[in-house]
Amino acid sequence: MKINVLSLFPPMFEGVFNQSILKKAQEKNAVSLNVTDIREFADNKRQVDDYPFGGGAGMVLKAEPIFNAVESLAKSEKARVILMCPQGERFTQQKAEELAQEEELVFICGHYEGYDERIREHLVTDEISIGDFVLTGGELAAMTVIDSVVRLLPGVLGNADSPVRDSFSTGLLEHPQYTRPADFRGWKVPAVLTSGNHAKVDQWREQQALKRTLERRPDLLERIELSASQQKLLNELKKQEN
Amino acid sequence: MKINVLSLFPPMFEGVFNQSILKKAQEKNAVSLNVTDIREFADNKRQVDDYPFGGGAGMVLKAEPIFNAVESLAKSEKARVILMCPQGERFTQQKAEELAQEEELVFICGHYEGYDERIREHLVTDEISIGDFVLTGGELAAMTVIDSVVRLLPGVLGNADSPVRDSFSTGLLEHPQYTRPADFRGWKVPAVLTSGNHAKVDQWREQQALKRTLERRPDLLERIELSASQQKLLNELKKQEN
Repeated sequence: MKINVLSLFPPMFEGVFNQSILKKAQEKNAVSLNVTDIREFADNKRQVDDYPFGGGAGMVLKAEPIFNAVESLAKSEKARVILMCPQGERFTQQKAEELAQEEELVFICGHYEGYDERIREHLVTDEISIGDFVLTGGELAAMTVIDSVVRLLPGVLGNADSPVRDSFSTGLLEHPQYTRPADFRGWKVPAVLTSGNHAKVDQWREQQALKRTLERRPDLLERIELSASQQKLLNELKKQEN
Repeated sequence: MKINVLSLFPPMFEGVFNQSILKKAQEKNAVSLNVTDIREFADNKRQVDDYPFGGGAGMVLKAEPIFNAVESLAKSEKARVILMCPQGERFTQQKAEELAQEEELVFICGHYEGYDERIREHLVTDEISIGDFVLTGGELAAMTVIDSVVRLLPGVLGNADSPVRDSFSTGLLEHPQYTRPADFRGWKVPAVLTSGNHAKVDQWREQQALKRTLERRPDLLERIELSASQQKLLNELKKQEN
């Protein structure tokens, strides 16, 4: 996969792109990550933003440098061009899986400014938001999307980092985990986990995952199909609640 | 505000913490940002994770290094200790505003691993998730929360970067913005914006903000109280839809 990022603050990406999974993914040639300063595509004055028509506070990113940058950098006409903005579609794991099928992604990151609407109307294929909160710019949101997409690419995660246990992959929140020491400051590991009875361990974990999901994210339970044993456990948990 | 971050990959933070608003906020002494490697608080073998009790894939972050790190770094007993994890409360602008009132925050970022449950039970005050997607670690999530909190601290944003136009601050998505040229590749700015009639401009913007919110995020409309004129515009928009 080829990923181009357009930003006014390219150095923001250095730490994240040169560590951990994103570093490994590049070393394995699973992805190429390229960050370009939007100013390189601005006119002689390096002006990338301007006052809004109709007046008002704040600046607006001009259409021309963004169009020029995307048209210059995208290798394919099929490249997905993604605008990071609060008005966008909410990012989910499903969207990450969809984007992981693409060969080329371009991310446009604004910073303080708004975007000239013609960028939305005539250039981008996707508008994405990572949540209902205000960030200084689209950079952190783009890094977040890129991290979640790249780790899904074939060959990126080794067995050691297997996504098997991921929350959201089962549709339930993860059960509690414990590691040594069995007694830490008097707080002990649940006895079942040191019992050696694997069937009991599995049952306890399933019950705890259901319990945590019921307590914290009951909306997730409505989105998945529970097995007969899960449904039974859930009914018992609901009884205990009442 | 004093912020300590615990991570196994401290260099991830360098780019983000040394640019833009987070850099300025530190220069203005509005915040001190400190990233510490959890391994500094591990035993001689620098072992920070271990196999889960009960078996299974993946590793679990040990309680001891995390407890030691938090207890060593937090200056105050009132420090909020925040665990970044998919099971956490969904991060929102409201939570950012709440955290911006605090004097001290500690962020715990896991990476691949799960957390020993005793960290949740006996150390942290908040568990936060930025959304329903899987990240390689808690680092990007922590940076996201930190960016949105720090920009709210007094004196951090100058007038130029005023949060006035932020989405979510009015409860509506932002109206479309346009800047020069008025004609870009044949795509023209809406005439009202170059009319010089400020009342019409304001009305158009309010209408467009409502329209976009209705189309993209109707859930937001249920959370705010609309003015009489907004309610009237909204009724007209809904009529046009039918």
